[in-house]
Amino acid sequence: MYTLGELAERIGARVTGDPSTQIIGVCSLELPKPGCISFLTQPRYRKHLENTSAAAVIIRQTDQEYCSVSALVCDNPYVAYARITALFDKQGNSNNTVDETAVIDPSSTIGEGVSIGAHSVIGAGVKIGDGTRIYPNVTIYHDCLIGRNVTIHSGAVIGSDGFGFANEAGRWIKIYQLGRVVVGDDVEIGANTSIDRGAIEDTVIGNNVIIDNQVQIAHNVRIGDHTAIAGCVGIAGSAVIGKHCALGGGAGILGHLEIVDGVTVTAMSLVTNSIKEPGVYSAGTPLEPKSHWQKNYVRFKQLDDMARRLKMLENELKQLTDKG
Amino acid sequence: MYTLGELAERIGARVTGDPSTQIIGVCSLELPKPGCISFLTQPRYRKHLENTSAAAVIIRQTDQEYCSVSALVCDNPYVAYARITALFDKQGNSNNTVDETAVIDPSSTIGEGVSIGAHSVIGAGVKIGDGTRIYPNVTIYHDCLIGRNVTIHSGAVIGSDGFGFANEAGRWIKIYQLGRVVVGDDVEIGANTSIDRGAIEDTVIGNNVIIDNQVQIAHNVRIGDHTAIAGCVGIAGSAVIGKHCALGGGAGILGHLEIVDGVTVTAMSLVTNSIKEPGVYSAGTPLEPKSHWQKNYVRFKQLDDMARRLKMLENELKQLTDKG
Amino acid sequence: MYTLGELAERIGARVTGDPSTQIIGVCSLELPKPGCISFLTQPRYRKHLENTSAAAVIIRQTDQEYCSVSALVCDNPYVAYARITALFDKQGNSNNTVDETAVIDPSSTIGEGVSIGAHSVIGAGVKIGDGTRIYPNVTIYHDCLIGRNVTIHSGAVIGSDGFGFANEAGRWIKIYQLGRVVVGDDVEIGANTSIDRGAIEDTVIGNNVIIDNQVQIAHNVRIGDHTAIAGCVGIAGSAVIGKHCALGGGAGILGHLEIVDGVTVTAMSLVTNSIKEPGVYSAGTPLEPKSHWQKNYVRFKQLDDMARRLKMLENELKQLTDKG
Repeated sequence: MYTLGELAERIGARVTGDPSTQIIGVCSLELPKPGCISFLTQPRYRKHLENTSAAAVIIRQTDQEYCSVSALVCDNPYVAYARITALFDKQGNSNNTVDETAVIDPSSTIGEGVSIGAHSVIGAGVKIGDGTRIYPNVTIYHDCLIGRNVTIHSGAVIGSDGFGFANEAGRWIKIYQLGRVVVGDDVEIGANTSIDRGAIEDTVIGNNVIIDNQVQIAHNVRIGDHTAIAGCVGIAGSAVIGKHCALGGGAGILGHLEIVDGVTVTAMSLVTNSIKEPGVYSAGTPLEPKSHWQKNYVRFKQLDDMARRLKMLENELKQLTDKG
Repeated sequence: MYTLGELAERIGARVTGDPSTQIIGVCSLELPKPGCISFLTQPRYRKHLENTSAAAVIIRQTDQEYCSVSALVCDNPYVAYARITALFDKQGNSNNTVDETAVIDPSSTIGEGVSIGAHSVIGAGVKIGDGTRIYPNVTIYHDCLIGRNVTIHSGAVIGSDGFGFANEAGRWIKIYQLGRVVVGDDVEIGANTSIDRGAIEDTVIGNNVIIDNQVQIAHNVRIGDHTAIAGCVGIAGSAVIGKHCALGGGAGILGHLEIVDGVTVTAMSLVTNSIKEPGVYSAGTPLEPKSHWQKNYVRFKQLDDMARRLKMLENELKQLTDKG
Repeated sequence: MYTLGELAERIGARVTGDPSTQIIGVCSLELPKPGCISFLTQPRYRKHLENTSAAAVIIRQTDQEYCSVSALVCDNPYVAYARITALFDKQGNSNNTVDETAVIDPSSTIGEGVSIGAHSVIGAGVKIGDGTRIYPNVTIYHDCLIGRNVTIHSGAVIGSDGFGFANEAGRWIKIYQLGRVVVGDDVEIGANTSIDRGAIEDTVIGNNVIIDNQVQIAHNVRIGDHTAIAGCVGIAGSAVIGKHCALGGGAGILGHLEIVDGVTVTAMSLVTNSIKEPGVYSAGTPLEPKSHWQKNYVRFKQLDDMARRLKMLENELKQLTDKG
């Protein structure tokens, strides 16, 4: 529990109303709860400010006149809300503890304030930076480097072998993967995500990269700082992703290509070539009732044919018009 | 081992033939096995009834005349088969045991007849309903509620943080996730599936929802009763899925949209808008030999141009015809 | 550490230069490292041979004249490189050990030289062949058979229940899965991959099948020898995949269909019908800047209409021309 005044101090906001107001949690404006603090990020939700039963609200200066309760006033209420959630997170109390069932190789190096959950496994030579939180049932293979203040969720696997095989007369011969995974600071790695170690060089995840659940990052991939990767994305080997990129859910990135800084790829789009200009990129066809879709779907196979016939028609009509 | 008569009693069927026939397992009609019971669901497989080496068959009344062996006669042989598989499942005997290597927070509440597999981790404040079966290496984060008779397969992660971040001048600030996951009764959760906890409110899985492997369910998603979700589906944050829906393998659902009851989405289709009418929905293009596909694929970029040129041609031809 | 002569003997190559050269690791030609051995697979990289700082290079006979350092000469440098990586893999030394935290059912059979990582769980009646390596946090359900020299990465789940349910008046009734998973020899199974047990018969993975991370293989699937499955692929129930196939990342295979030997499916393509001829198959639309894509995307819904109008125009123009 915090007073409004304490929260203001923690996040650098200004209090309007009673700074001794007790705040016991966070709520949304749509579902306000007594004793909780809410936040307003968009003017169109201003209507919820009036008569809210929340104990207080985080707002911008410009929304102050619409607010009937105590408030924290700041420039970016969404960021302020993010900072306040950290204070109310129950897991925050379990930091700095290594569960006794975690298996940690004695040759690994564990930083200050690291928490490691039950049944997690930390391989030989692994280094984990200060303040990193590893949830239960995480596996980190030998020699990987994890930065500071990294969060790794359950089921994540860091440093498994890249998918490298040489083909000898139809038979696959395993290429043992001798590189590492190097994860920067302030990174989030989601549940059941896997990041393979490099074949010879390393797989590299930059600082403040955020990765959702069920993501697959193949060997030798390099991801630039502050890039966001949504759930179910797959990134093939040796792809290089820039900084401040955003990969939508289920997007796929083929191997050995480069994506510059500032690229957004929308959900379930497949990137088959390098992207050299920042911007938003998409692929795919629209969802339709199946009966309609089926008619268009089969026509896709005729698309090239249709294009040729259209061109032919244009030519014929032009001849006819010229003649006439 | 059961006699045919015992099975009939268990599933409420009528015996034809010898009720003392010993049944040692289940087999398919295509690969019948002595001592085993098979089932007929579709008339087109009737031919397999004749001379089958199975010990008995589950059939409808109307198929009785084609059957040369003992039988269980009932209205829905497929449901009867389902019920009989429960009797022959070897894991059924291991119920009601909590493996000694499971890590269970003392503040959690475990119901009657719950089985928890080796190395599973149950967080603080979790409540698990009676008869639920949790396989090895499952992780359930703090405060999540799991209903009765739920099955959770290995590698599943329930209650990991939703993917919530505020952006402050290009830098991602974590929004701690303060909600829970609430799972109803009679739910199945597949291997390596992840279900994130809510940001503020809860992520909610209804009763008798069945979820396959490798599924990603983001924070604040709500899934209605009796909905089926096939493997590799991804559902983005705050999506609301109705009752009795079916999401095909690899389908994607964008965030903050609503799908009404009774919607089927076919495999690998992306839902980008709310769906307001029940029915079957699809997206995507047909599989083709790559050389053909490539020709059509590149034409997709000209589709709008083609549509305009087609319209223009129609106008020109109309003018020409009108003139003529 | 090995001498060049020792390596030559191990992989059956010929030494040119000094066979006593000490080799301490493997490097790429682009990032050569003193003391390490590199390899040349394609003539276009020959320029890197000159003045390389690598201690030695694996080359073909025909590249020998371009090489300024000691070399291993052989027919297939990529295969030779693969074999040499095995010698430098640090994990190679940890073989033949079963971690004390692994939970292994006493009724299982573990072969010679098997390594089982921390917190892995091996169910009742499982049989594991000689030389197989199971990484930490793997789960193998009861009665599954794993061949010899198989590698299973962390988070993988073998033998979880297939997704089988009978629908009784809108309610899902679980069909217990009574089959097994049978995995051949020399198979690789990636991190967080799941392979479901069969409903009645078995799910079968052939010899030397290589499976990447995050792959979902449903019940009763059969995969032929030497087939390669990239990350995030989903294969639905009872699909039969031939030998020497290659499924690209994120590809989907619908259930109950057959794919012959020698088929390649490119990334994120959905296979909806059986494939009867070897070759390369694709589906999907090209990535475009979102503004362009959106115009084409909406036109997809008109594709059938456009095809009909095109046909009509052709007819009209023909009439007009015939008249003229």
